[in-house]
Amino acid sequence: MAVKIIDGGINAPEGFMAAGLRAGIKEGKTNKDMAMIYSTVPATIAGTFTRNLVKAAPVKWDSKVVFEEGSAQAVVVNVAIANASTGAPGFKDAEDTAAYTAESLGLKKENVLVASTGVIGFRLPMDKIKKGIDMLIPALSYDRQAADDCATAILTTDTHKKEIAVEFEIDGKKATIGAICKGSGMIHPNMGTMLSFITTDVAIDRDLLQKTLREVVSKTFNMVSVDGDTSTNDTCIILANGLLKNKKIEGESEDLEEFKAALYTACEYLAKNIAKDGEGATRLFTAHVTGAPDYETARILAKSIITSSLSKAAIFGRDANCGRIMCAMGYSGAEFDPEKTDISFSSSEGVIQVVKDGMNTDFSEEEALKILTPDEITAECDIKSGSAEATAWGCDLTYDYVKINADYRS
Amino acid sequence: MAVKIIDGGINAPEGFMAAGLRAGIKEGKTNKDMAMIYSTVPATIAGTFTRNLVKAAPVKWDSKVVFEEGSAQAVVVNVAIANASTGAPGFKDAEDTAAYTAESLGLKKENVLVASTGVIGFRLPMDKIKKGIDMLIPALSYDRQAADDCATAILTTDTHKKEIAVEFEIDGKKATIGAICKGSGMIHPNMGTMLSFITTDVAIDRDLLQKTLREVVSKTFNMVSVDGDTSTNDTCIILANGLLKNKKIEGESEDLEEFKAALYTACEYLAKNIAKDGEGATRLFTAHVTGAPDYETARILAKSIITSSLSKAAIFGRDANCGRIMCAMGYSGAEFDPEKTDISFSSSEGVIQVVKDGMNTDFSEEEALKILTPDEITAECDIKSGSAEATAWGCDLTYDYVKINADYRS
Repeated sequence: MAVKIIDGGINAPEGFMAAGLRAGIKEGKTNKDMAMIYSTVPATIAGTFTRNLVKAAPVKWDSKVVFEEGSAQAVVVNVAIANASTGAPGFKDAEDTAAYTAESLGLKKENVLVASTGVIGFRLPMDKIKKGIDMLIPALSYDRQAADDCATAILTTDTHKKEIAVEFEIDGKKATIGAICKGSGMIHPNMGTMLSFITTDVAIDRDLLQKTLREVVSKTFNMVSVDGDTSTNDTCIILANGLLKNKKIEGESEDLEEFKAALYTACEYLAKNIAKDGEGATRLFTAHVTGAPDYETARILAKSIITSSLSKAAIFGRDANCGRIMCAMGYSGAEFDPEKTDISFSSSEGVIQVVKDGMNTDFSEEEALKILTPDEITAECDIKSGSAEATAWGCDLTYDYVKINADYRS
Repeated sequence: MAVKIIDGGINAPEGFMAAGLRAGIKEGKTNKDMAMIYSTVPATIAGTFTRNLVKAAPVKWDSKVVFEEGSAQAVVVNVAIANASTGAPGFKDAEDTAAYTAESLGLKKENVLVASTGVIGFRLPMDKIKKGIDMLIPALSYDRQAADDCATAILTTDTHKKEIAVEFEIDGKKATIGAICKGSGMIHPNMGTMLSFITTDVAIDRDLLQKTLREVVSKTFNMVSVDGDTSTNDTCIILANGLLKNKKIEGESEDLEEFKAALYTACEYLAKNIAKDGEGATRLFTAHVTGAPDYETARILAKSIITSSLSKAAIFGRDANCGRIMCAMGYSGAEFDPEKTDISFSSSEGVIQVVKDGMNTDFSEEEALKILTPDEITAECDIKSGSAEATAWGCDLTYDYVKINADYRS
C-alpha cells in the first residue's frame, strides 16, 4: 500500500487527543497561544533539537526526557515567550510546567514534554501557564476541531497552520501518522525545526525510532531555510504509542521502509510549507541539485542556494539572475566544476535553461519572467559529476520580512 | 610619528597617477564606469582574492600577475559587467584588456592588473573597453581631481566614494599610503573585498608585503558583511613603488610596525565605510566581542552577530532585541558560555546594558530606543573568559536592500 494523505491532524493516530486555546500569555495578543497533545498510553519517543549553543530551557528539559526516559504521554506548548536565555530559573519554569501537567494527568513529570517559542530573554508567566494547563486538559479531544485548534495554537508569525496526516500499511494493518509544525522566522534548522510534533500508533523500537527520525529530519526540516538564523528552540518530537498492535518494528524490514516513507511524506510536506510560509515570503524557492558525486556535495550546494540573500531577493523580483546562484554555489564550500554546471528555472509555466557549462545561455528574458511568476519556483542545477542529488526549500526575501523583523518585539 | 589621515586619494604617494571616466559600458548608465591607476616605475605588488570557487576572469588573471610576476605598473577597472562565469573566452577578454593597456603604456601585459565588477554571466564589450583605455591613458594625472574621478568610477550601488590617504614615517622619511575601494552588495569578503586598491611609495620586500596585506585584510575587510554573500570578484591589491627611497623593509622592525599600522588605518577606514554604505543601509552596525580566550573565538562571534539577518533587521527597527544577538552567537560555532555573557548597546547617545550573565536586564526601553537611534550602533559583548577581542562591521537590513536586489539587473 502506498502512503496516502488523509484529512486529519495530530490526533489522527489511535489513542491521541489534542487541544489548543487562548491562555492570554501575551497581553494584547488575541489568538490561541497554548496547545496540548496527549496519548492515552505511554508512547515511545524520539527527538531532534537545535545545535545552537544557546539552548532554550524547554529544549534542555525535553533532551532529558527523550534521551534519559525515552517515553512520554503529553506535550505542552506555549507561544509568545521562548523561555531562552533565562538561566536556571527558566529551566525551573520548564520543569514546573511539566510537573503541573503531570500532576493533573496522573503522570510523572519526566513523561511530559514542554515546548516554547517567542521572544528570547524573558521568563514565562507561570500563573498564566498553569491556568492554561487547567483549561487544556478538559479540552483534550479526539475530534477534528481539536486537532485544528492544536495546530493553530502553536503558530506565531505563520500565516496558516501546517498539519498533515498520512495512512500506510504496517504488518497488514492500517497505520497512521499525524504531524504539525510552525515556522516562520529564525528558521535555518540544525537538527529539527522550530517546533514540530509527530504522532503515530505504530509500535517501534526506541533506538530505531530515533535513528529513523534523525535520517528523515536531515533530509526534510534540515533542508529548509527562511533566514539563515538557527533558532535556540528548534524541536522535533515523535510519539509512537503502539496502539496499532503491530509486530513491533525492531530492525531493517519492509515495515521499517514503509514507516520511513510515511514519515518522510509527512516531514517533507511540513518542511515545504515552512519555507513557503517563511516570514514575508511570496514564493516557495526550491533548489534541486543533481549530478553530484555524493549526497553531501548536493546537500551543501542546494542549501547554499536557498540561503543566499541575493538569490532570494532576485526570486522576489522575478529576476532570472543566474549569476547569484552560481555565486552561492561557489562560496558554499562544496567542490564542483563551475564550467560543467547547467542551471534551469522551472515552475508551472515551464522550464528555461539559463546556464550551460557555467556560462549564460542566450535565454529570452520575457520567457524567464513568465516562468518566474508563479508562487513555486525551482532552480534545477546539474553539476554533471555523478548521480547523487538533494533538494532544499527556501523562500524569497521581501520587504515584509524586513518589516516583520524590524520591530519583532512590539 | 603617528599615522595621520591627510586629504588625498589613490595618487597621493609619490609616482602614482590616476584617472576615471565614462566609457559607456552599460547602456543608459550615466556615471563613470572605467578607472586606471598607474605607477611611473615598476611597483612590488601583493594581493588577496576571493575564496569563492567561482572566480571571475580578472581574479584569475590578477592571481597570476601577483603570485607569478610580483610586480606591476598599471591597474584597469571596469564596472557594470563582472566578467564572471564567462569561461575561457572571459579569461581571454581579461588578458586582452591587460595586453591592450600594456601596449599603449609600453609595458608587458603581465605587469598590468585588471578588475571588473557588475553582473555575473555576461561578456565584456571589448570595443568599449578598448576605447575606454584609449581615453584613460591621456587622462592619467597626479592631481586631486583625478584621484576623485578614479575613486568615483569604480562605484556601483555605493552611494559615496570610499578613499583615504595617510602619512607616516619610515626610515626618517615621510611615507604615504593611498587607498580606494567599492562595496556595497554581495559583500561578505573572504580574502579581500569586492574591489580595493592601495598604493604606497614605501620600499618593502615582496613576501613581507604579501604577509602584511593578508594580516591586515583578515582583521579589516574580512570582518565586514553586508549580506553574507561572498562575491566572485573580491580583490584587494597593493602596489608599493619604492619611490620613498627608504632602506627597504625586509623583516621585523619598527619600520614594518609603522607601515602595518598605517595600512591598518587605511583598510579599517575603508572596511567601515563599506559596511556603513551597504546596500540599502541606514546604520553602521559594529559588533565588538571582548573577554574571549583567543582571537579566533572573538572573530567568529563578532562576524556571526553582524551577519545575522534577524539582528540586522532589529537594528533597522531600533529594537534592543538582544535575544537575536545571543542567538547569533549561539549558532556561530564558537565555544563560549552563554550564562557568562554580558551585552550592551552603545552609540553617541550613550551605553545601555541589556544582558547580564546571559539574562535580560530590566533595561529601560525608552533609553534603549534613544541609544539605538544614531546612525552608528555598537553591540559590546563580553564573554568573560579571557582577554582576546575582535571587531566586525555590518549594517542594518532594510526595505531598500530588498528593493535594490529584487531587480538588480534592470
